[in-house]
Amino acid sequence: MDVVLIAIFCGLAAVLYGIITSRQVLAASPGNARMQEIAKAIQEGAGAYLNKQYTAIAIVGVIVAVLVFFLLGTIPAGAFVLGAVLSGLTGFIGMNISVRANVRTAEAARNSLQAGLTMAFRSGAVTGMLVAGLALLAIAGYFYALVASGLEPTSRAVVNALIALSFGASLISIFARLGGGIFTKAADVGADMVGKNELGFDEDDDRNPGVIADNVGDNVGDCAGMAADLFETYVVTIGATMVLVALLISGPDAASLMTLPLLACGVCIITSIIGTYFVRLGKGSIMGALYKGLLVTGLLSIPALWFATAAIFPDMNAVIGLDQVAVANEAPTIAGVVGGFTGRALFYCMLVGLAVTALIVWITEYYTGTEYRPVQSIAKASDSGHGTNVIQGLAVSMESTALPTLVIVVGIIATYKLAGLIGIAFAATAMLALAGMIVALDAYGPVTDNAGGIAEMAGLEGEVRQRTDALDAVGNTTKAVTKGYAIGSAGLAALVLFATYTEDLSQFFGNVTVDFSLSNPYVVVGLLLGALLPYLFGGMAMTAVGRTAQAVAQDIRAQFRENPGIADRSVRPDYARTVSLVTAGAIREMIIPSLLPVLAPVVVYFAITAVAGQGNGFAALGALLMGVIVSGLFVAISMTSGGGAWDNAKKVIEQGAYGGKGSPAHQAAVTGDTVGDPYKDTAGPAVNPMIKITNIVALLLLASLAGH
Amino acid sequence: MDVVLIAIFCGLAAVLYGIITSRQVLAASPGNARMQEIAKAIQEGAGAYLNKQYTAIAIVGVIVAVLVFFLLGTIPAGAFVLGAVLSGLTGFIGMNISVRANVRTAEAARNSLQAGLTMAFRSGAVTGMLVAGLALLAIAGYFYALVASGLEPTSRAVVNALIALSFGASLISIFARLGGGIFTKAADVGADMVGKNELGFDEDDDRNPGVIADNVGDNVGDCAGMAADLFETYVVTIGATMVLVALLISGPDAASLMTLPLLACGVCIITSIIGTYFVRLGKGSIMGALYKGLLVTGLLSIPALWFATAAIFPDMNAVIGLDQVAVANEAPTIAGVVGGFTGRALFYCMLVGLAVTALIVWITEYYTGTEYRPVQSIAKASDSGHGTNVIQGLAVSMESTALPTLVIVVGIIATYKLAGLIGIAFAATAMLALAGMIVALDAYGPVTDNAGGIAEMAGLEGEVRQRTDALDAVGNTTKAVTKGYAIGSAGLAALVLFATYTEDLSQFFGNVTVDFSLSNPYVVVGLLLGALLPYLFGGMAMTAVGRTAQAVAQDIRAQFRENPGIADRSVRPDYARTVSLVTAGAIREMIIPSLLPVLAPVVVYFAITAVAGQGNGFAALGALLMGVIVSGLFVAISMTSGGGAWDNAKKVIEQGAYGGKGSPAHQAAVTGDTVGDPYKDTAGPAVNPMIKITNIVALLLLASLAGH
Repeated sequence: MDVVLIAIFCGLAAVLYGIITSRQVLAASPGNARMQEIAKAIQEGAGAYLNKQYTAIAIVGVIVAVLVFFLLGTIPAGAFVLGAVLSGLTGFIGMNISVRANVRTAEAARNSLQAGLTMAFRSGAVTGMLVAGLALLAIAGYFYALVASGLEPTSRAVVNALIALSFGASLISIFARLGGGIFTKAADVGADMVGKNELGFDEDDDRNPGVIADNVGDNVGDCAGMAADLFETYVVTIGATMVLVALLISGPDAASLMTLPLLACGVCIITSIIGTYFVRLGKGSIMGALYKGLLVTGLLSIPALWFATAAIFPDMNAVIGLDQVAVANEAPTIAGVVGGFTGRALFYCMLVGLAVTALIVWITEYYTGTEYRPVQSIAKASDSGHGTNVIQGLAVSMESTALPTLVIVVGIIATYKLAGLIGIAFAATAMLALAGMIVALDAYGPVTDNAGGIAEMAGLEGEVRQRTDALDAVGNTTKAVTKGYAIGSAGLAALVLFATYTEDLSQFFGNVTVDFSLSNPYVVVGLLLGALLPYLFGGMAMTAVGRTAQAVAQDIRAQFRENPGIADRSVRPDYARTVSLVTAGAIREMIIPSLLPVLAPVVVYFAITAVAGQGNGFAALGALLMGVIVSGLFVAISMTSGGGAWDNAKKVIEQGAYGGKGSPAHQAAVTGDTVGDPYKDTAGPAVNPMIKITNIVALLLLASLAGH
Repeated sequence: MDVVLIAIFCGLAAVLYGIITSRQVLAASPGNARMQEIAKAIQEGAGAYLNKQYTAIAIVGVIVAVLVFFLLGTIPAGAFVLGAVLSGLTGFIGMNISVRANVRTAEAARNSLQAGLTMAFRSGAVTGMLVAGLALLAIAGYFYALVASGLEPTSRAVVNALIALSFGASLISIFARLGGGIFTKAADVGADMVGKNELGFDEDDDRNPGVIADNVGDNVGDCAGMAADLFETYVVTIGATMVLVALLISGPDAASLMTLPLLACGVCIITSIIGTYFVRLGKGSIMGALYKGLLVTGLLSIPALWFATAAIFPDMNAVIGLDQVAVANEAPTIAGVVGGFTGRALFYCMLVGLAVTALIVWITEYYTGTEYRPVQSIAKASDSGHGTNVIQGLAVSMESTALPTLVIVVGIIATYKLAGLIGIAFAATAMLALAGMIVALDAYGPVTDNAGGIAEMAGLEGEVRQRTDALDAVGNTTKAVTKGYAIGSAGLAALVLFATYTEDLSQFFGNVTVDFSLSNPYVVVGLLLGALLPYLFGGMAMTAVGRTAQAVAQDIRAQFRENPGIADRSVRPDYARTVSLVTAGAIREMIIPSLLPVLAPVVVYFAITAVAGQGNGFAALGALLMGVIVSGLFVAISMTSGGGAWDNAKKVIEQGAYGGKGSPAHQAAVTGDTVGDPYKDTAGPAVNPMIKITNIVALLLLASLAGH
C-alpha cells in the first residue's frame, strides 16, 4: 500500500501545483476598468450557468445515487457521489481560473506574445493538473481507504466501488460536456448569424448582445465541460484497468498489479508538471513552444514508467500472476497470452500507449493544421462557394478517421500480443497518464479566445488582438488534439470495459450460456442498436444547437428592434438577457440526449431477454457496448477533426488566401466554420462520455441483477 | 426443375413486358426539331460516357475473370462473366430507353399531367422489369443449366457459380454506381456553381455549357448506375439465400428449398407487371398514383407468395429438411431454430420482408417528403442562413437512421424466431422480389428531370415545366425510397452472407479454430477496419465529386471567357467539351475507391494471418464483413435520406416559403441541396454494392484458399 500512498502524494503535488500557479495567475494585473468590467460580465454569466447546470445535474445525480444505494449498497453509493462531486468540482475550478486568466492574458499580451502565452498556458496548466490530480486522488484515495478498512483489493466490494466511482464521473461529464457544448455553440452560432451575417459586425463587437454569451460559452463548454470529460476518461480508464486486473488475475500479484496504474499515473503527473516549465517561445512557433512541453513530458515519462513498473515488480522478467500450470502447458490463459506476461512486457505496452498518443497528436495536427493538404483543400473549395466548402469539409472529416483507426488497431494488436487484454488496458492507462499535460494544452485555448474578445471589446491596441489571434489559432488544433486523444483512448478502454463485462458475466451468471459470436443474430441486433446510439445522440445534439441558436438570433434581433440605440453605442445591449436565454435552452436540451446512453442498455437487455431469453439478452447487451464504440469512434473522430479543419480553413482565408476577409470565399468558409462548430464542440466530444456511460451502466446492471 | 422453368418463364415475361412497353414509348411523338436536337445531344453524351465507362470496367473485368478462371475454374468464370455482362446490359438498356423517353415525356406533358406521368412511368417500368427479369433469368437460367448438366444443386460447383455470378454483378455495379454518381453530381454541382451562383442563370439555361452534361448525368447516374446497383442487390440476395440453403440444409428438401427464392421472385414479377397498370392519377396526388401501383403489387404478392410456397411444399405445416433426431431432441439446429421450420413459417418470413419494405418506404417518405417535420425544419433553418441549413440537414440525416434500424432489427428478430437464419434470408428475398416495381418508381425520376430540362431549353410553354417539376419533386422521394430499400435489404442480406461465410469456413477449414466472439481482440480489429471502409470510401467519393465539379466550373468559366457571345445566345456553347471533361474525370476518379472493397478483405486476411495465425485471420475477416455492414448501414441511410431532405427543403422554399426563389433562405437551401447531391447520389448509394463486394470477395477468398 506504500505504492498507493506515493500515488496519492503525486495527486496532492498536482493540486499544490494548481494552487501555486493559480496564485501566480491571480497576482497578475487584470487590466483597466473597462477590461475588468467585461471580464466581470463573463465571470457572472459563466458562474450563473454553471450553478444552474449543476443544480439540474444534482437532481438527476441524487436520484441515481439513491438508486445505486438501494441496488448496490453504501460503498458504491459513496463512490458514485465522490466521482460525481469531484468531476463537477474540476469543471468548476477550471472555469473559475479560466474566467480570471482571460483578462490577465489580454493585459499580458500588451507586453509581449511570450507574456500572453505564459499567462494563458499557466491557466490551462492549472485545469490540466487539477483534472489529473483530483482524478488520481479520487481513485487512489478511495481504493486506499477501502483496503485500509480491511477489504481485499480484488474483492467485489472494491470492484463495485471503482465502477460506481466511474459512473459518478461519467454521468456528470456527459451532462457537462453536452450542456456546455450546446451553450457555447448556440451562443457562437446565434451571435454570428445576426452579428456577422446580418449586421456586418466583426467577431466580438461589443454592440452584439450575444457577445458575452459567446465568451461565457468558451469557459463553460471548452473549459468546464472539457475538464469534466477528461476527468471522466481518466477515472474510467484507470478504474477499468484495475477492475480487469482484479477479475482476471489471481494470487498475490493481483493486488500489486492493481496499484501499478495508480503509480504510473502518479509519476506521469510529476513529469507533466516538469513539462509545463518547458513551454516557452524560442525561435520556433507557438505550437512548437507547446509541443516542447509535451515532448519533455513524454520523454521523461519513459524512464518514469520503467521505474514505476520496477518498483512494484523488481524482477522485470518474471511472469506475473498466472496459474503456473497453465504457463507450463503453454495453454492460452485467461488474460489472452500464451505463457503469461512480464513486467517488462507491461512496460512495453505502456510505451505503445505513449506512441499511440504521439501518433494521434501528429495525425490530428495534420488534419487540422493550417499548413497541410486537408485544411488547404477546404480553403480552396471555399473559393467555389458555400456548397463545395461543406462538401470538401465532410470529405475531410470522413477521411480523417482512417489513420487514427489504423493506429488504434496496431496498438491493440501489439499490446495484445505483448500482454493480452491486460496489455491493452495498460496502454490505455499510459495514454491517460499524460492527461495533465494534454488538458493543459487544451484549456489554454478558451483563455486566449476570451482574451481576444476582451481586447476587442475594450478597444485595446491592434497588436494585442493580433497576438491573441495567433495564440487562438493554435488553440483550434490543440482542442482537436485532446478530442482525438480522448476518443482514441476510449477505443482501447472500450475493449477493457467489454472484457470486464464478459468476465463479470461469467462470475455472476456462469450458469447462463451466452453466445457472443457474430453468427448469433442477437449479437448483430446489439451491434446495430449500439451503432445507432452515436447517430441518434449526434442528431439530437445538432438539433439542440440549431434550435437554441435560432432563439439566440431572435433575441438579438429583438434587442436591436427594441433599442435602436445599440447600433450607435448610445445604449448598452442587455448581455445578461441573452446569457440567461442560452442557459435555459442548453439545460433544457441536454437532458434527453444524456439519458439515452443511460437507458438504452437497460431497455435493450430487458427487451431481448423478454423475446429470446436471458442468454441472448446478455449477448445483445454486450454487442451493444461494442457497437457503440465501433460506431462512436468514427462519428467522434470525423466530427472533431472535420470541425477543426473547417475552423482553420476559415483562418487560412482570413490570413489573405482566396481574397481574404470579406471575400466570397471567406463567406463560404464562415458557413463551413458554423457547420463545424456543433460538430467539433457539441456532438463530437460528447460521444466520448456517452460510450463510457453505456458500458458502465451495463456493468452496474449486471451487478444489480446478480444482487451484489 | 419445373419450378425453375416457371421462374425462367416469369423472367421472360418481364423481358417481353420491357420490349412491348419500349415500343409503346418509342411510338410516341418525340416533339419538335429543337427538342429532338437537345435530346440527341443528351443521347450522344450518355452513350459516349457509357461506352468509355464500360471499356474501363471491361479491362478490370477481364483481369478479374482470368483470376477467377485460374483460381476457381471454368464454371465460376462463366458465371462471373454472365453476371457482369447482364449487369452492364441492364444499365445500358435502361439508359437507352430513358434518353428517348425524356423528350417524349416533355412532349406528352404538353397535353396533360396524366400523359406525362404515363410516359415517364412506362420508361421507368421498362428499366424496372428488365432489372428484375434479367437478374432472375441470369440466376435461374445458369442454375437450371448446371443442374441439367448433371451437377447436384447443393454441390460446391453450383454454390461457387452462384457466388461468382454475384461477384460479376457486384463488381460492375460498384463501378457503374460510383462512376455514374461522380458524373451526375460533378456536372450538377459544377454547372450550378457557375450558372446559378455566378451568372444568375436558372436551372437548365441553354447558355450554360454544363447543362447537357447535367442532363446526361441523370441518365448515366440515376438511371444506368441505379439499375446496375439494383441488379446486383437482386442477384446477390437471391444467390446468397440459395447458397445458404445449400450449405445448411441436407436431404432431398434442400434442392426444393433452393428453388423457392426463384419461384417467389418469379410470381412477384407478375404481380409487379400487374401493378404497373394501376399507376394512374385519380383524385389524389402524383405520389398517390405511384403508391397505388406499389400497393397493388404488394397486396397481390401476399397470395402469390403463399401459392409459390405451397407449390413446392404442399404440406405447409410439415417440417422442412431437418435432421429428425435433432427435431425430436428439441436441440438447436444448424439453421438456428429449435425443432425446425415449416413452409408456413417461411411464408410468414416473406410477409415480414414485405412489411419491412412497406415500413422503409413510409419512413423514407416521412424523412424526405415536403410536408413532414424533417424537411420543414431544414426549410425553417434556411431562413437563418447557410450554416444553420447545413447543421439542421446533418441533424436530420443522422436522426433518419433510427427508425429504419429499428425496423431491420425487429425484422431480424421476428424472422430468426420463425425460421432461423433461413428465415432472415427469405425475408430479404421477398424484399427484393418487389424490385421490379420499386425500380420502376425510381427510374421514372431521371426521365421527368430530363423532360423538365428539355422543356426549359426548347422554350416550351410554362405549364409544361410546371407539370414536369411536379413530377420531378415526387422523383426525389422515390429515389430516396429505393436507396433506403436497397440498403435495408443489404442489412438482412449481410447476415445471410456472414452466415454463408462461417458455414463455408467450417466446411473448408473445419480443422482451424476460429473464435468469432466479441472478446477476441482480432474480431474487434476486424470490426473497426470494416467500419472504416464506408467512411474512407465516402470521403474519397465526396472528394472526387468536389474535384471534378471544380474542373467543370473552370471549363464553364473558360467557355464564357473564350466566347463572350454565349451570353447573348449568338454563339452556342460547346456542350460536348464539358461532357467529355466530366467523362474523363468520373472514370479516373471511380477506379481507386472501387478497388477498396475488393482489396481490403484480402489485405486484412493476409496481414492478420501473418501476425496472429490463420484462425485469427479468418476471425478478423469475418468481423470486417460485419463491421462494413454495421457502419455502412448508417453512413448510407444518413446520406441518402439527408440528401433527399435537403433537396426537398429547397423545393419547399421554391414553392414560396420563407421568401421563395431568390430570397436569402433560398440561397441557403441551394447550399444544402449542393451538399446533399454527392451525399445522396454518389457516396451514399455506392455504399450498398461496396458492402456486398466486401462479403463476396471474402467468400471467393475462402474458396480459392481451399483450392475449390
